Amino acid sequence: MITLAIDAMGGDHGLDVTVPASVAAVQAHRDIRLMLVGQETRIREKLDAVGAGDAGRISIQSASEIVAMDDPPALSIRRKKDSSMRVAINMVKEGIADACVSAGNTGALMATSKFVLGTIDGIDRPAICGILPRMSGSTYMLDLGANVAVSPEILFQFGIMGSQLIESHGGPGNPTVGLLNIGVEEFKGDETIKAAADLFKNSDLNYVGYVEADDIYMGNIDLIVCDGVLGNIALKASEGVAQFIMSVIRQEFTRSVFNKVAALASRSTLNAVKNRLDHRHYNGASLIGLNGVVVKSHGGTDSVGFRCAIEFASKAAGSGLVERIGRQISERMRSEAVSDRGSGARIPGLS
Amino acid sequence: MITLAIDAMGGDHGLDVTVPASVAAVQAHRDIRLMLVGQETRIREKLDAVGAGDAGRISIQSASEIVAMDDPPALSIRRKKDSSMRVAINMVKEGIADACVSAGNTGALMATSKFVLGTIDGIDRPAICGILPRMSGSTYMLDLGANVAVSPEILFQFGIMGSQLIESHGGPGNPTVGLLNIGVEEFKGDETIKAAADLFKNSDLNYVGYVEADDIYMGNIDLIVCDGVLGNIALKASEGVAQFIMSVIRQEFTRSVFNKVAALASRSTLNAVKNRLDHRHYNGASLIGLNGVVVKSHGGTDSVGFRCAIEFASKAAGSGLVERIGRQISERMRSEAVSDRGSGARIPGLS
Repeated sequence: MITLAIDAMGGDHGLDVTVPASVAAVQAHRDIRLMLVGQETRIREKLDAVGAGDAGRISIQSASEIVAMDDPPALSIRRKKDSSMRVAINMVKEGIADACVSAGNTGALMATSKFVLGTIDGIDRPAICGILPRMSGSTYMLDLGANVAVSPEILFQFGIMGSQLIESHGGPGNPTVGLLNIGVEEFKGDETIKAAADLFKNSDLNYVGYVEADDIYMGNIDLIVCDGVLGNIALKASEGVAQFIMSVIRQEFTRSVFNKVAALASRSTLNAVKNRLDHRHYNGASLIGLNGVVVKSHGGTDSVGFRCAIEFASKAAGSGLVERIGRQISERMRSEAVSDRGSGARIPGLS
Repeated sequence: MITLAIDAMGGDHGLDVTVPASVAAVQAHRDIRLMLVGQETRIREKLDAVGAGDAGRISIQSASEIVAMDDPPALSIRRKKDSSMRVAINMVKEGIADACVSAGNTGALMATSKFVLGTIDGIDRPAICGILPRMSGSTYMLDLGANVAVSPEILFQFGIMGSQLIESHGGPGNPTVGLLNIGVEEFKGDETIKAAADLFKNSDLNYVGYVEADDIYMGNIDLIVCDGVLGNIALKASEGVAQFIMSVIRQEFTRSVFNKVAALASRSTLNAVKNRLDHRHYNGASLIGLNGVVVKSHGGTDSVGFRCAIEFASKAAGSGLVERIGRQISERMRSEAVSDRGSGARIPGLS
């Protein structure tokens, strides 16, 4: 049985989304138990409204405050110690929940998770790793927005964490890793990315070189590593294009009576297209590098999307990811210490 | 009559694309004259092959060398002084052509243009400005990849140049301008973008604040300003998603005999969709900030796309953009000089 703490108040739509999604998730999965964290009366009312007043495997954990979507992260940590987000993360820390899920403010979720759970020993910065669709298989990508400025070493750690995430999800062993850049040629990019490329080349990771942003969807790279700014821009631009294209399709298929008839004839095919492109099915990004499993749902998602994030968290909770990353990082630190001793390069007096 | 110099050897497909596109463009537009720059014998052979051996309003300008798509920019300037790209830009410098069009190596095109034409007085860095589709109207965006690192002042100059480009194209007067960032909240982003936001706020530009990358396609902002890395990532991610979605549609509509029949019934609607999303119709980006009009075509485009870039260049050539930007920048420099004298802030001893 997997127990998940759900930040019931988080996201653009709060309880209207989190409660129906939670009810649907426990009905579909017998091995999931959910603890809805937030304002008890309101949660109970919503459970009654969706006809799940005494739903088994759903319980309520009271928390009086709510982190707003535009609260600065530092403020949410200092001032809102009884927020639904904070209490849900505390439950992971205390071992009451195996993972937590929130559609709330990304910055606050990352900052609070880091503050409460701490990072895995040797990891400098946790990151947000998402899964994006391609023609066959999917592309993991990090960081999607947690880290504005990064060093080459941090990018390299993203590579280790992402590779372990893929393997822990039962993806390809020794996954291929690319560094997102503005061109594939060696001379492209700034000094940070060039230094990161050197770290990847001299490592055990299955590094394939620089990749461009169209490779996210049209390439065959398992993991794409970048800083949080590039990740955010790539992801948001993608969302914009996808929405734009779907709007154009909708507009053209409703432009005339003839087109509406055509749409009717193509309904099942158009539905299949819509289904494959439905971003809600890719909802749920991992905050990795933390001592615990925290899943971020898109803030504006609906109950179908939030349910996907819950299901994603239930798989991630049992994958042993934290331990896997911990082992890889400590091995790396050991081997670096050995090579430092060997060369006497860093602190000769102490070697 | 507009005269354009065409880098006939540039792009992934060279003459196979540039020559048919040029022939189609002069046939469709009586006011365009084209000078195809490159290896004369090969150009003449290709003109004969497409049945336009003695095409009126097309002439050939000999150039012996070719800039490869992966030539480092500095090398192309130093070593290939008789390249088709260089000679085409020279013709703009000498006033023989009103503008030039190239599908060649972007870095080399920008570096050579800067070297040969020079930048407009007061402009620190030229940039690449593209036009992207949205539901109604279009979004201008710069920089799409010329400048890896920028200062707040350079971002602000991008705002001036882009606004002038829109007005010179007959777009909305006093166009709205947004700064691309990882969130719309004031506290988001690094120091460079925050300082740039201050410059925009205290200017005459119609600044609307930070925008996110989905606003490129789903917003209503006329101009989006960013550095070349973000621009490149947003553009390439967009291309990837669009290709992916079109592939999914194609795959679903050919999955079974039934689906193929549905596709037949929807053929005209699907074609209308395809047409509206056809990136070839948006081909042609402006290199702005230079003392001359240079248009960059996508390197991998076909003859339909390259013809669009030629048509775009013919409009841009007559728009007086260089003079407009020159006036705006010199006004800004004058007003800064006045305010410096007034406050005595910068070099008090000289005021």
